Amino acid sequence: MINKLEADSLKIGKETLKSRLFIGTGKFSNNKKMPEIIHAGNASVVTVALRRVDQKSTEENILDNIPKDVILMPNTSGARTAKEAIRIAHLAKAMGCGDWIKIEVISDNRYLLPDNQETLLATEALVKEGFTVLPYISPELMTAKRLEDAGAAAVMPFAAPIGSNRGLRTKELVQILIDEIDVPIIVDAGIGRPSEAAECMEMGAAAVLVNTAVATAGNPLKMAEAFSLAVAAGRTAFLAGTGRVLSAGASASSPLTGFLRKEEA
Amino acid sequence: MINKLEADSLKIGKETLKSRLFIGTGKFSNNKKMPEIIHAGNASVVTVALRRVDQKSTEENILDNIPKDVILMPNTSGARTAKEAIRIAHLAKAMGCGDWIKIEVISDNRYLLPDNQETLLATEALVKEGFTVLPYISPELMTAKRLEDAGAAAVMPFAAPIGSNRGLRTKELVQILIDEIDVPIIVDAGIGRPSEAAECMEMGAAAVLVNTAVATAGNPLKMAEAFSLAVAAGRTAFLAGTGRVLSAGASASSPLTGFLRKEEA
Amino acid sequence: MINKLEADSLKIGKETLKSRLFIGTGKFSNNKKMPEIIHAGNASVVTVALRRVDQKSTEENILDNIPKDVILMPNTSGARTAKEAIRIAHLAKAMGCGDWIKIEVISDNRYLLPDNQETLLATEALVKEGFTVLPYISPELMTAKRLEDAGAAAVMPFAAPIGSNRGLRTKELVQILIDEIDVPIIVDAGIGRPSEAAECMEMGAAAVLVNTAVATAGNPLKMAEAFSLAVAAGRTAFLAGTGRVLSAGASASSPLTGFLRKEEA
Amino acid sequence: MINKLEADSLKIGKETLKSRLFIGTGKFSNNKKMPEIIHAGNASVVTVALRRVDQKSTEENILDNIPKDVILMPNTSGARTAKEAIRIAHLAKAMGCGDWIKIEVISDNRYLLPDNQETLLATEALVKEGFTVLPYISPELMTAKRLEDAGAAAVMPFAAPIGSNRGLRTKELVQILIDEIDVPIIVDAGIGRPSEAAECMEMGAAAVLVNTAVATAGNPLKMAEAFSLAVAAGRTAFLAGTGRVLSAGASASSPLTGFLRKEEA
Repeated sequence: MINKLEADSLKIGKETLKSRLFIGTGKFSNNKKMPEIIHAGNASVVTVALRRVDQKSTEENILDNIPKDVILMPNTSGARTAKEAIRIAHLAKAMGCGDWIKIEVISDNRYLLPDNQETLLATEALVKEGFTVLPYISPELMTAKRLEDAGAAAVMPFAAPIGSNRGLRTKELVQILIDEIDVPIIVDAGIGRPSEAAECMEMGAAAVLVNTAVATAGNPLKMAEAFSLAVAAGRTAFLAGTGRVLSAGASASSPLTGFLRKEEA
Repeated sequence: MINKLEADSLKIGKETLKSRLFIGTGKFSNNKKMPEIIHAGNASVVTVALRRVDQKSTEENILDNIPKDVILMPNTSGARTAKEAIRIAHLAKAMGCGDWIKIEVISDNRYLLPDNQETLLATEALVKEGFTVLPYISPELMTAKRLEDAGAAAVMPFAAPIGSNRGLRTKELVQILIDEIDVPIIVDAGIGRPSEAAECMEMGAAAVLVNTAVATAGNPLKMAEAFSLAVAAGRTAFLAGTGRVLSAGASASSPLTGFLRKEEA
Repeated sequence: MINKLEADSLKIGKETLKSRLFIGTGKFSNNKKMPEIIHAGNASVVTVALRRVDQKSTEENILDNIPKDVILMPNTSGARTAKEAIRIAHLAKAMGCGDWIKIEVISDNRYLLPDNQETLLATEALVKEGFTVLPYISPELMTAKRLEDAGAAAVMPFAAPIGSNRGLRTKELVQILIDEIDVPIIVDAGIGRPSEAAECMEMGAAAVLVNTAVATAGNPLKMAEAFSLAVAAGRTAFLAGTGRVLSAGASASSPLTGFLRKEEA
Repeated sequence: MINKLEADSLKIGKETLKSRLFIGTGKFSNNKKMPEIIHAGNASVVTVALRRVDQKSTEENILDNIPKDVILMPNTSGARTAKEAIRIAHLAKAMGCGDWIKIEVISDNRYLLPDNQETLLATEALVKEGFTVLPYISPELMTAKRLEDAGAAAVMPFAAPIGSNRGLRTKELVQILIDEIDVPIIVDAGIGRPSEAAECMEMGAAAVLVNTAVATAGNPLKMAEAFSLAVAAGRTAFLAGTGRVLSAGASASSPLTGFLRKEEA
């Protein structure tokens, strides 16, 4: 067991990650603070919406705020079809963003839920082109199986609508993905508190991605640190093996008989 | 905020605790492993049922397994009335166990739930004698207020029946205690997973006590470590201030308009 | 089983109730509508705060709005001690309100949670005087046992803070009361929706009391009817015996093999 | 409001349903009892797996047990692809089962979760042929939108894996379907207790389908009755409009000041 714990690391594509926390960047009010927050959370992967990368600006390039020791994962936020997502992936590669790509295809304007069908099409195309593809999906087993078959490097189901901080509202479905899919399951979107991230990890998720939970915290830096601790806690518990849960009743810590009564006799 | 975080420490009675994890000892199958587990969990306080302390044995004394750098908190497990609890407290002091005492008065044999009324009587008496008293109760506001008035050093409501690993089933009531009671609220009994401990801390609990969750884990040592991380995560999140939760809908990470469409024009 | 179902009725004190829905009256904006609402809900028992009964008014007496075919249960709302509750009970009897009394002793101004200790004292005194006593409590096993021993006709734990419509937040504790206490357990306060009332009944509660859920509904009359149906649904399910719940996996409705495949062969 | 309530009825395809409870038949141990159970539940629609219909048997035809006053909805259970589902639909029509068809396409053998993509293909084809198509899906917004666009008469998301009695584990996603999709949302699979069916209806579901919950009950006849009451309760509550829920605190039924204190003065 100890060996298993020591050797515990997450490999995605060709990379071995230094932690199981991914951080999104879209919600931060001040990009200058990103390096500090990423560092406080000990994040291994940072995702950036490609449309926020302004390669022509001479003043600010958001990529300048991504530390060199994390993996950059551009995402296709803004894409409403597979075709658009593919085009964004090509742009990302052309701009030197590497070969990781998070597929986000969203045409629902109210809940911002991903389109599994278009996401699958984009994934199939981009895997063939050699990208390391991490698709963001609505938790649904058959889509996840097809993504796995298509060569996705991981599958990223949402916990709740993006930016909602509502927590793991899709637990039943995410657990099924974890149990049935062989590539890593990374819970993305909706996680609002570190305890929820820990719960995902206890269930066997490979990693967790957060953004709004950190960005809307009173102290984002400290919240990033809290998530880092929580993800480690949950992973450690998963590897340690959580104990049985009683369906009813209680279990005394030690025999309740005798002690005082005997003395009284 | 930073100062508040740096200075964050828990004082109970005259002691400043080095962590917010308490560990119970009743469920461990092998007392020899206790020091390692306590160390792995970085526990600040360790509770031992006085009836398990056999001061006459020449072979083993459970107290020998309690590290010197933690606070020993004998408990009155086995007591069914205030009178019995008080007697055990006196025995503990006579045996050199210090002046901390956790009051457990239980006469319910099925769920092992504490008797708030007898617990209050024992607390009143022992505070007057100079003990640092931590009463274990069924979460109930008026009892907690009376315990606070009586001079309890902290109040310890249960999360679920002892030994059940069922988690924070009394959340509504524990949150009310946290909001209304000025002495520290320490969640005790029923916590089964680190994520649940983190949740207690995010709610504002001062500390968490675990035993069965660690003892029944596949790897108790690693589970103690997981709880240590989770308690730190939850406390850090509480101090950082968790973000708002949307009651419905979603919140985009960045404006969804324009990007691709503009390019197409 | 059929016989058991047919013969299913609830006896409290000397009364056999015609239904398992109790209705509170404090929140209705218009007392004139009470008879209709009570009728729509087919309530068997109606509770009225004695302090709202103005026996001197020549214009309106709230009691005039209580139908003759329901049991009147005055309550001691406003009492902060056992002594005050006892005095209100005496006033109620003197005013001809019968011998049922719901004990409410509340000194917590924020959550309006009952004081179990004072409630027990009032119950002990009033049972001796011949009242049919239904105490309102914070769900806590030992208090419930003492109330049962003292002769309470039923025990009424809250589901959530009064008027909150938050639902059955104390499920773990209420289930324990149902399992361990022999007098009827009537869930009171906090129930916000009919499905929650049905859940209480499925768990084995004897009855449910609602007020705010009906009073704050868009159409209180229809909501009373909805609660009547839900309580009947839950009770019927309890008697029918709910089916087993799978902890994981699924169970096919019929063999999945062969059908189409055979044909293809 | 009253008019709205009186006029409340559910139309699917060309039919106006007499109730909002659908009953499945696959799990009943004795087909002879079906008419009684269907009657006890006042079900409007009954689904039968076509593969269980043996048109050649001279001894028993399951269809003989379906009362004439309910709508027969054959289902494509056993189909693993759209093509197979379409073939079963054709068989059903040829056998005189009418033009309703519930599409079930399942190739996952462990959780028996539906395949949204194949289900969409089958729905598109069968709507064009004039069937009244009710597809069974994994709750996922974009698939539901496409089914609606394709002319599905209703959409049937699961609550939990079929036969599990685990309840409404997909609440977050089902609520989104109810809010965003204009055709009726009928919750199918996983509902284990009447309170859960009531909850679905309170959320705005158009109807609920149950089978295992009734078939595995101690008394299936009475459980069917309980579901009938619960569905009516939930629907009535939805139309009545449930009250506001306090996020914290309580709300007194009537002013707590003055009463006893004034008298004491």
